[in-house]
Amino acid sequence: MTDPTWLSEVKFSQDGLIPAIAQDATSGRILMVAWMNQTALEQTVSSGEAVYWSRSRAKLWHKGEESGHVQQVAEIRLDCDGDVITLQVKQAGSIACHTGRESCFYRVLNQGEWQEVDPVLKSPDEIYGK
Amino acid sequence: MTDPTWLSEVKFSQDGLIPAIAQDATSGRILMVAWMNQTALEQTVSSGEAVYWSRSRAKLWHKGEESGHVQQVAEIRLDCDGDVITLQVKQAGSIACHTGRESCFYRVLNQGEWQEVDPVLKSPDEIYGK
Repeated sequence: MTDPTWLSEVKFSQDGLIPAIAQDATSGRILMVAWMNQTALEQTVSSGEAVYWSRSRAKLWHKGEESGHVQQVAEIRLDCDGDVITLQVKQAGSIACHTGRESCFYRVLNQGEWQEVDPVLKSPDEIYGK
Repeated sequence: MTDPTWLSEVKFSQDGLIPAIAQDATSGRILMVAWMNQTALEQTVSSGEAVYWSRSRAKLWHKGEESGHVQQVAEIRLDCDGDVITLQVKQAGSIACHTGRESCFYRVLNQGEWQEVDPVLKSPDEIYGK
């Protein structure tokens, strides 16, 4: 595995991961936060589509590989500490969240309660064809 | 310490922290990512200004307490897994990053290099008056 200079500035955590925030490139809405290991980041850069590391399944996760809801990556940024990445993405199918919503951030704190403010666009069954 | 229902839905990590993404409420720009423990989150909610947990200093950090660059919080969201928070903020002084830039995400990956694309608005010395 090559280790180009840009990769050496990315500070993966002790378990080899870095959080990546996917933001809609047009609306600016924050869609989701997931994790990348070095391979996921390299594949994201080389393919132009978001590839994450699924901690629950312990394997690379090409976002949308099952659902078709891939994320085309327009821009990758790194923060001042080098330990968080942002992706500007074009989200296929307008659904980033496994609950069938546009964004994983669909709950707003309102007078001491988390209020669900965004609609389910597709049921998870529809998304995953089960 | 009271434990209202909304707090019980927030999944802090084993070390008691949750990442919080501060996003400019007007432009949608992602300004920074920091950590909160339960007290930081409670103080953010009760004060209406962002309070984080500084891992390096191991203490509560009322953002802007030294620099004046406080963040008024317009909205707090929680993701589907309950383990990431977003804040819609109004950033006083237009500087969120300790380097004196608007955002911590000022480096863009461009042809295998991290390119600095945002200006330093104030030097850190100016910010912290040292």
